[in-house]
Amino acid sequence: MKVELAPARVRGFRFAGVSAGIKTQAGAKDLGLIAAEQPCPAAAVFSANKVKAAPVYATIDRIRAGRLQAIVANSGCANSFTGKPGLKLAEDSCAAAARALGCSPQLVAPSSTGVIGHLFDLAKFSAGVRAAAAALSEDGLEDFARAIMTTDTRPKMASTTLRLGGAHITIAGAVKGVGMISPHMATMLGYIMTDAAASAAELRAALKLALPKSFNAITVDGDMSTNDTVIVMASGAAGNRPLRGRDRDAFNGAIAAVSAALARELVRDGEGATKLVTVEVRGARTAADAERCARQIANSPLVKTAFFGCDPNVGRILMAAGSSGAALQSDKLVLAIGGVKVAARGALLTAALGAAQEKMRAREFTVTLDLRLGAARATILTCDLSYDYVRINAEYTT
Amino acid sequence: MKVELAPARVRGFRFAGVSAGIKTQAGAKDLGLIAAEQPCPAAAVFSANKVKAAPVYATIDRIRAGRLQAIVANSGCANSFTGKPGLKLAEDSCAAAARALGCSPQLVAPSSTGVIGHLFDLAKFSAGVRAAAAALSEDGLEDFARAIMTTDTRPKMASTTLRLGGAHITIAGAVKGVGMISPHMATMLGYIMTDAAASAAELRAALKLALPKSFNAITVDGDMSTNDTVIVMASGAAGNRPLRGRDRDAFNGAIAAVSAALARELVRDGEGATKLVTVEVRGARTAADAERCARQIANSPLVKTAFFGCDPNVGRILMAAGSSGAALQSDKLVLAIGGVKVAARGALLTAALGAAQEKMRAREFTVTLDLRLGAARATILTCDLSYDYVRINAEYTT
Repeated sequence: MKVELAPARVRGFRFAGVSAGIKTQAGAKDLGLIAAEQPCPAAAVFSANKVKAAPVYATIDRIRAGRLQAIVANSGCANSFTGKPGLKLAEDSCAAAARALGCSPQLVAPSSTGVIGHLFDLAKFSAGVRAAAAALSEDGLEDFARAIMTTDTRPKMASTTLRLGGAHITIAGAVKGVGMISPHMATMLGYIMTDAAASAAELRAALKLALPKSFNAITVDGDMSTNDTVIVMASGAAGNRPLRGRDRDAFNGAIAAVSAALARELVRDGEGATKLVTVEVRGARTAADAERCARQIANSPLVKTAFFGCDPNVGRILMAAGSSGAALQSDKLVLAIGGVKVAARGALLTAALGAAQEKMRAREFTVTLDLRLGAARATILTCDLSYDYVRINAEYTT
Repeated sequence: MKVELAPARVRGFRFAGVSAGIKTQAGAKDLGLIAAEQPCPAAAVFSANKVKAAPVYATIDRIRAGRLQAIVANSGCANSFTGKPGLKLAEDSCAAAARALGCSPQLVAPSSTGVIGHLFDLAKFSAGVRAAAAALSEDGLEDFARAIMTTDTRPKMASTTLRLGGAHITIAGAVKGVGMISPHMATMLGYIMTDAAASAAELRAALKLALPKSFNAITVDGDMSTNDTVIVMASGAAGNRPLRGRDRDAFNGAIAAVSAALARELVRDGEGATKLVTVEVRGARTAADAERCARQIANSPLVKTAFFGCDPNVGRILMAAGSSGAALQSDKLVLAIGGVKVAARGALLTAALGAAQEKMRAREFTVTLDLRLGAARATILTCDLSYDYVRINAEYTT
């Protein structure tokens, strides 16, 4: 399935991104708005972190009804660990957006991202959301994607189109990352809109199928945000027949493809990242073993610094695999970097290291560890750990 | 109990550290030898990593008998993931040391540290171990400590003396770190010698009691080495009576104190570390919760970069706590940095952040998180994540 990373239109939705003065940089977009023409079926997943942000609680509360009409998301302030004043602020921000749009506050899902522990200014937010409502446009997805950026270096979007149920449908989404990423449920802020006619239950099912190979299969730093939210909304404007059989499979596949593309963009733009690395573990005894092993490799600071240094450091990868708790035998496993076999039969293939190092100079490469103990496999996308990760996270409060 | 970090003598043991040409830097010490006058009771713990180095297997094999006469440790090459040739090399290196010392190869425990996946040159090793045997001295502990260094910036030793069982006894040890440190069993290479008369069972018991508050309570990067080994040997030269009652408690306490001091030295010299941070979690519902929560904070790259930047980033600490899986309630917990309360009753204490930042400028400070849900507590020592960690691990193969 072809997935585009350019901005797209989705019938039934308008988007905006404006500067409301919540970020300290003057003129930086920091308030994004998505509005549907009418209440839509919607589904969402959230951070599994036990410290959840106020807007996450507000969105959890609203999504139970399976319907939303708007999403309002600000950057520059996470409204997390803000106690009762934070919960009130999240409700007040929904009310402000609802007034600007002329809908019920219960149909507005709020999201916030930025520094934890602080409240934003409601008056600035309210003025911003009025400006955003006035700026809503079918072509506004990129503005929205810019408004939710924090340490992201670029707006991140993905879309696809397909024919199903007698209609052409579009699925398009936007995400922001790019630190505190290692979700167990969802990751950071992600929004996916479609003009397909689909029920809230169908959206929940599609999102649940998409997660294990998209937002739950990535890591930047092994840290799980307090604000993670992924929302899917369906306007029904495409006028397709109800989703059944092959159509439903195609729809689920398309949601999964857009989710995977968005998740990949998150890692490509990971804080300080210079490389996108796919860690594949196969031949594991169980699926849990495969995932544990792939995650341990993908999160190891020693492995990630070696990626940054283009160092085919087999020892560090095997150290991580061996400490993951997954069943493995040193003398059985086969390790390849960029398709170049670097370890087998319990020993390093020293002669191959030069070729592996060449593969690591690319912007993207794959590390494949075959444990040769079973049939289970797992894939995790990760990035390298560079000086810039330290710079971004040590020199600024983010 | 007073613990010194200076070199010490331990009756019944001699030490040496020489350059055998295993490290690439000319003249760098890379072979350490500890020799007792006769076979001694000994105990050891090892890496829980499923990829274990050849010398670890050789030492595991030898320690079963509960007796050792010598330890030979090289840096510059880990002899890990080296298959059958590695196992043979570990045995051959024991044989070479045994020849030089005139004892049985089964009484020599080998250790290696350095790059994984490579073998060292046996001829160089054999010449080195002969030179080391000739250089053995009661005053050689510092030379030994230098010979086992890899990315360590300084030799690390600790010792204490006490009176028990009618005799003055000394306990002294040396360790090397300083990356790939987050043990579940032991950490990196650590050797503790005492002139006390103690059985192998008593040494095992003392080591087991010491681990949870020393080598198992530290982290540098959350990565677990394949070569971790801690060995304790007792020469009996002090001539004390058998350890009973209060004497045994005092002995265990002294082993624990020396272990804790060595572990602390490991973290203080962590790769790129500029700060030593004690993470204390108290008020947890269970001991497992307390430990999980403390470890998650201590290993979080976002928390560790904030330590480096002297940023009192409450949000990142709470994010880590919340993602640890430990039971917690945002509105109950109390967080202090350097004794300055920065979060309570579900909110950040913004006015206190300046004072907390001042505390973070120190070389050492404590982060205390009281979950206020129970009585369990855990303490983990960690360090910050700096540019130098990235430099050390990206620019060199270690």
